[in-house]
Amino acid sequence: MRPIYLDNNATTRTDPSVVADMLPYFSEFFGNASSQHSFGAPVAAAVRAARQSLQNLLGAAAESEIVFTSGGTESDNSAILSALETQDGRDEIITTTVEHAAVLAFVGHLEKTRGIKVHYIDVDARGRLDIEAYKRLLGPRTAIVSIMWANNETGTIFPVSELAEVAHAAGALFHTDAVQAVGKLPIDLKSTRIDMLSLSGHKLHGPKGIGALYVRKGVKFKPLIRGGHQERGRRGGTENVPGIIGLGKAAVLTAERFQEELGRVRKLRDRLEQGIVQQIGHCLVNGDLDNRLPNTSNIAFEHLDGEAILTNMDRAGIAASSGSACTAGSTMPSHVLKAMGVPASALQGVVRFSLSRETTSEEIDRVLESMPQIILKLRGMSAHWTHQPSQTDELASSFV
Amino acid sequence: MRPIYLDNNATTRTDPSVVADMLPYFSEFFGNASSQHSFGAPVAAAVRAARQSLQNLLGAAAESEIVFTSGGTESDNSAILSALETQDGRDEIITTTVEHAAVLAFVGHLEKTRGIKVHYIDVDARGRLDIEAYKRLLGPRTAIVSIMWANNETGTIFPVSELAEVAHAAGALFHTDAVQAVGKLPIDLKSTRIDMLSLSGHKLHGPKGIGALYVRKGVKFKPLIRGGHQERGRRGGTENVPGIIGLGKAAVLTAERFQEELGRVRKLRDRLEQGIVQQIGHCLVNGDLDNRLPNTSNIAFEHLDGEAILTNMDRAGIAASSGSACTAGSTMPSHVLKAMGVPASALQGVVRFSLSRETTSEEIDRVLESMPQIILKLRGMSAHWTHQPSQTDELASSFV
Repeated sequence: MRPIYLDNNATTRTDPSVVADMLPYFSEFFGNASSQHSFGAPVAAAVRAARQSLQNLLGAAAESEIVFTSGGTESDNSAILSALETQDGRDEIITTTVEHAAVLAFVGHLEKTRGIKVHYIDVDARGRLDIEAYKRLLGPRTAIVSIMWANNETGTIFPVSELAEVAHAAGALFHTDAVQAVGKLPIDLKSTRIDMLSLSGHKLHGPKGIGALYVRKGVKFKPLIRGGHQERGRRGGTENVPGIIGLGKAAVLTAERFQEELGRVRKLRDRLEQGIVQQIGHCLVNGDLDNRLPNTSNIAFEHLDGEAILTNMDRAGIAASSGSACTAGSTMPSHVLKAMGVPASALQGVVRFSLSRETTSEEIDRVLESMPQIILKLRGMSAHWTHQPSQTDELASSFV
Repeated sequence: MRPIYLDNNATTRTDPSVVADMLPYFSEFFGNASSQHSFGAPVAAAVRAARQSLQNLLGAAAESEIVFTSGGTESDNSAILSALETQDGRDEIITTTVEHAAVLAFVGHLEKTRGIKVHYIDVDARGRLDIEAYKRLLGPRTAIVSIMWANNETGTIFPVSELAEVAHAAGALFHTDAVQAVGKLPIDLKSTRIDMLSLSGHKLHGPKGIGALYVRKGVKFKPLIRGGHQERGRRGGTENVPGIIGLGKAAVLTAERFQEELGRVRKLRDRLEQGIVQQIGHCLVNGDLDNRLPNTSNIAFEHLDGEAILTNMDRAGIAASSGSACTAGSTMPSHVLKAMGVPASALQGVVRFSLSRETTSEEIDRVLESMPQIILKLRGMSAHWTHQPSQTDELASSFV
């Protein structure tokens, strides 16, 4: 039986029609997009069309606001570095305790090596930001605010449009890591004050190795990767033409299928989550349940080890993860759930289910059949389960 | 008639068998290589095999010395930044006046913004380095020497193995931008003292958007792009799996076909060059003719404009360039040829012919038929040609 893939927040299957569109750009239209001869011209035109598809998906005001990069991490790093290098006298960063490593590792390095002050906004038990603290932290030295649009582990959505307004009032730039949001939420950048936005192709059924950074017209920008004058001087290096074409096609498909698919995915996710919570006791759904990505469910199974659950799920033909693939293999508890104050008894036994437009109702049926057996078996083997009192009854009951 | 592509130093056609190997990794084995479940494992194994293919091509001592990046520019930037961030008290860079923009733009930025001292080694009229000046510049503050293995415009080869020995004697790290050398010269890194080496997939019939940085075991490294722990903590961001697989296959093909193809390509290049020089007077072959890449010929046609020549060649179905695609569209004379002191009368009319293993003898015949007509027509229209005395007779005669 074909395994079930519920790890779409880590990466998605590249849509076969995306691959089909990429194919001619490897061995037929293989020219360098910056070349002036006849091998370059059709390639440059196709890159431009892909840029317009991204502009359309994001509701950007101009195609020139789209800078192609190698992925979400590069986009995040680039946005933050540029904000520091273009604004004399502003040397502080505001971000959150629950960002992706692509932001946290980079700002941590700047803090350590360049004397940049980084402020981290806390979240509550549901993963919601402390907005008042955010407002207090903003000031004349804030170079950039970098807050994700939606959290990769819990799916919690942050009110980036409002947060961007507040940042602007303080004269700071606002960047959002929207790697998990693009394709799962309606986005219309021209109606916001967001200055920069990161996205990644492989999170929306596009190829790996390609992403984009939106840079609002008028926002000064200095590149992270320096070389030739590609991307209007904002990103050196030969353009990844097949990747760009693939991302463009993924943007078109996402825009076309957005409305109908996400409603369906949300229903599947809700059925999965409610089925698990109702069949299996002592589990806790993490995140802001009223304000979440429609495809994500983060469930902590009390007194169990997440790796053991995932291994058993894998044997049953179900792929999910404990959180970010970027920290996979690590046995450290999630920094996101720790920041939310998830009780110790539930911190280790976490499974993130992330669906996509390819997830079927039959697959959810099969997961709902398997999960109770897996959890009950593991709980039968768990010393913690047998001997410790539950700490999550109250929290879990707040969901069901 | 199919156009003739002689711009392989800008980019090469992706080998169809490279594309064939990549294909399953888009929509079938689409998992994240860092994922722990069954969608990740086969992908991780394939990435490892690709890393071993690169190790083999470069003669590296261990597969762990290969770090996959998004391309040559990122590799160059990463190597230089890492050398500065890992060696306290060493804040000087030595490079050459003829490097690619991926080095020059990056070190120029460090010089301007971080108080790094950059020393530039000059070249002579043949593009050869001033080795004595290099030795004098090395010192206890040299963090890194970054010298290309072969020049992208003229094909001139630098003695990087010897240069690396000298750098080591001064306690400095040695990096080489080998984007043009890999696949065109024999490389065996374990027999050298080179610490870091950059390469790019699309210069050796692999895909665009993927490259690698060799980092010798034991050399401390800090990443440019920071996020997850991919590539043993040396490059954050989801692995570009199809790109990596493609680069691995390109490395295998390159290693297999290296010996027989390069001899053939060298003969074609020599026939092209000698044919042009003999049929068309007043042209100058740039570079170190005794020590050049076998595929590259850089020819200056006196008193003509390079863009006009290239446009006419393009109409005749021949694609070449005036130099780096990364500076394409610019009307500035080449910084490489200026550094070599190429006379003003020959600085504008430059054509770089760069062949590949796909270039055929019939194509060279066609180019040799077309070029005299194109040059004679343009010279008939040129005021410079009619009125100015030649400055290059003497230099050109040194070649024929």
